[in-house]
Amino acid sequence: MSVTAAKGFTAAGIAAGIKENGNPDLALVVNDGPRRAAAGVFTSNRVKAAPVLWSEQALKGGQVSAVVLNSGGANACTGPTGFQDTHATAEKAAEVLGRGAIEVAVCSTGLIGVLLPMDKLLPGIGTAAAQLSEHGGEKAAIAIKTTDTVHKTSVVSRDGWTVGGMAKGAGMLAPGLATMLVVLTTDADLGDETLDKALRAATRVTFDRVDSDGCMSTNDTVLLLASGASGVTPGYDDFAEAVRQVCDDLGQQLVRDAEGASKDIKVEVVNAASEEDAVEVGRSIARNNLLKCAIHGEDPNWGRVLSAIGTTRAVFEPDRLNVAINGVWVCENGSVGADRDLVDMRYREVHIVADLAAGTATATIWTNDLTADYVHENSAYSS
Amino acid sequence: MSVTAAKGFTAAGIAAGIKENGNPDLALVVNDGPRRAAAGVFTSNRVKAAPVLWSEQALKGGQVSAVVLNSGGANACTGPTGFQDTHATAEKAAEVLGRGAIEVAVCSTGLIGVLLPMDKLLPGIGTAAAQLSEHGGEKAAIAIKTTDTVHKTSVVSRDGWTVGGMAKGAGMLAPGLATMLVVLTTDADLGDETLDKALRAATRVTFDRVDSDGCMSTNDTVLLLASGASGVTPGYDDFAEAVRQVCDDLGQQLVRDAEGASKDIKVEVVNAASEEDAVEVGRSIARNNLLKCAIHGEDPNWGRVLSAIGTTRAVFEPDRLNVAINGVWVCENGSVGADRDLVDMRYREVHIVADLAAGTATATIWTNDLTADYVHENSAYSS
Repeated sequence: MSVTAAKGFTAAGIAAGIKENGNPDLALVVNDGPRRAAAGVFTSNRVKAAPVLWSEQALKGGQVSAVVLNSGGANACTGPTGFQDTHATAEKAAEVLGRGAIEVAVCSTGLIGVLLPMDKLLPGIGTAAAQLSEHGGEKAAIAIKTTDTVHKTSVVSRDGWTVGGMAKGAGMLAPGLATMLVVLTTDADLGDETLDKALRAATRVTFDRVDSDGCMSTNDTVLLLASGASGVTPGYDDFAEAVRQVCDDLGQQLVRDAEGASKDIKVEVVNAASEEDAVEVGRSIARNNLLKCAIHGEDPNWGRVLSAIGTTRAVFEPDRLNVAINGVWVCENGSVGADRDLVDMRYREVHIVADLAAGTATATIWTNDLTADYVHENSAYSS
Repeated sequence: MSVTAAKGFTAAGIAAGIKENGNPDLALVVNDGPRRAAAGVFTSNRVKAAPVLWSEQALKGGQVSAVVLNSGGANACTGPTGFQDTHATAEKAAEVLGRGAIEVAVCSTGLIGVLLPMDKLLPGIGTAAAQLSEHGGEKAAIAIKTTDTVHKTSVVSRDGWTVGGMAKGAGMLAPGLATMLVVLTTDADLGDETLDKALRAATRVTFDRVDSDGCMSTNDTVLLLASGASGVTPGYDDFAEAVRQVCDDLGQQLVRDAEGASKDIKVEVVNAASEEDAVEVGRSIARNNLLKCAIHGEDPNWGRVLSAIGTTRAVFEPDRLNVAINGVWVCENGSVGADRDLVDMRYREVHIVADLAAGTATATIWTNDLTADYVHENSAYSS
């Protein structure tokens, strides 16, 4: 399953010794064709890790033959040496696989500001290549874990073609670590421009709307590789929908595995004047530390929702705002609504609806509560 | 001291029964003239509490005779009834003091979305008026506390004139509560336009640069009242500097009393292309939850500083960024600098310098670490 659910792909995951604890830390995903079309989206952080800078270049040709992914080190903020290390990684994979280095994408995740142990990583590529298999998707997904408690995979199959993928990430940014990494594969027979269009459409409404702690990684990467091995060329809408489903599923898995979280919070903004407004408001609510603490305490503190809405530039009138928490409209017309004691917050999923009463656009942002465990996981004393 | 350090002012602080625990909760500050010039700055949150909406109107005339402040309830998101309650508060004070209601400013702090117990508040105004005193500044400062562990006052005296003040606020936004409230008084003989200019110049570089948890209150208010009772008209620069000093002192007291904090973090951005860039970068660093957790764990995690800088629109080149933590340049040219083990983080104050290498502008933002205690204080289960 995972990245090898689609025909034309092999993968492997091994322990190369990059992580000191001996856990799996190196994954290889190879596209055996006949096509090698690819698309990618990358972090919008202006401080980009070396593998992001490299892979952005690799994607420009619209072709990717293989992806090397490592956990145990982000290779971010590592200067020219870090970039040379990424380059050497791609060269090594190209040599072992008999492909061009510029068709090898590289993804790294782990601590920022630390050089990778290349004496472990480079030999590991050879070892991984020797284990490439049509059943290697699961092992690859395991090898990219950092603070993830579970590995994440998803597959959607249609009439003769498949989209599958793997993801790592515990929230958006892990402790001392970085990165959400996602590799999607398909055996649909499609070119890189179609892949790019479908991937951007999908990530815009899935991964881009998962916001665990408001912190943007230096390494975030989502790749989509097509082998064409099914011989089927699906219609764009069908294909885009399948990609969106896989992204949505993987995004949900990221939310459910967020560091220290005890609640998954679905922030749904409705009746906004525009989708941009809905996203801005949803993000502002999702990033409000006070609200996230209140939700952790199972306190339906709608005042903090209004306070968060009030910091945005969205179109709204304060005295027309409505807020529901788990189905109870606790705020009506900007003021006290139904009795907050009616709100049942015992379950892990919490649903907040913010009604801007300003139009018809909607957007949903997923986030988590803020907990003492999050603080512990992200403070050095916990490691 | 406090708001009664300057001549021409009386104040009182009493327990009116607004807080269920019987602690002081109502303060009155009265300007006995001869002048009653005033200026104010208010929250930029678009969801404004009733007392903010009222006081903004009151300030338009440039005259304030008295300020009524209550803790125990923010009177925010309380609809038309909440606004009527603020209006009734001003009317009552005006009646008791023999002034016009439109010259009475009102400030409230406490839970959002709850109506004030007017049957307690209105009689309390009469009680407080009967206790007005030139020595009442301390009691007034105590009566506006919410989760503050200490009351906050500051005084600067110059040749024959004085600027004094009081503040409440534990960080920028208190648990389930809201609001930073500040009342400054001076006996300098100055008009409202000069007060306004000096106050805006001071708050811009003091309170506006204290950012405990990134959450913006619905009630933030800073008032400056001038009695002219000293008969001295200081030069603008001298006066503005005195106001800035008092605001800076009170702002520092807010930082040191922030909820659950174990570290006070000074984020100094240097060599920015513009002051706007410096402020944007400083704020982005100060709001990064991952960094705030790392500082709590005494981990000089400079990668999280770079990651925060990378999310801004400021002018910089990633490979020219430098970061010092407590005097050690742990990041040089966007990469690994001095040994992070050299950083001593045992003390409460932490000093981060972010060098953008893009110009000559600077700005300093003050924030706190993110702790399990912050989560506890802001979750309902802690109350």
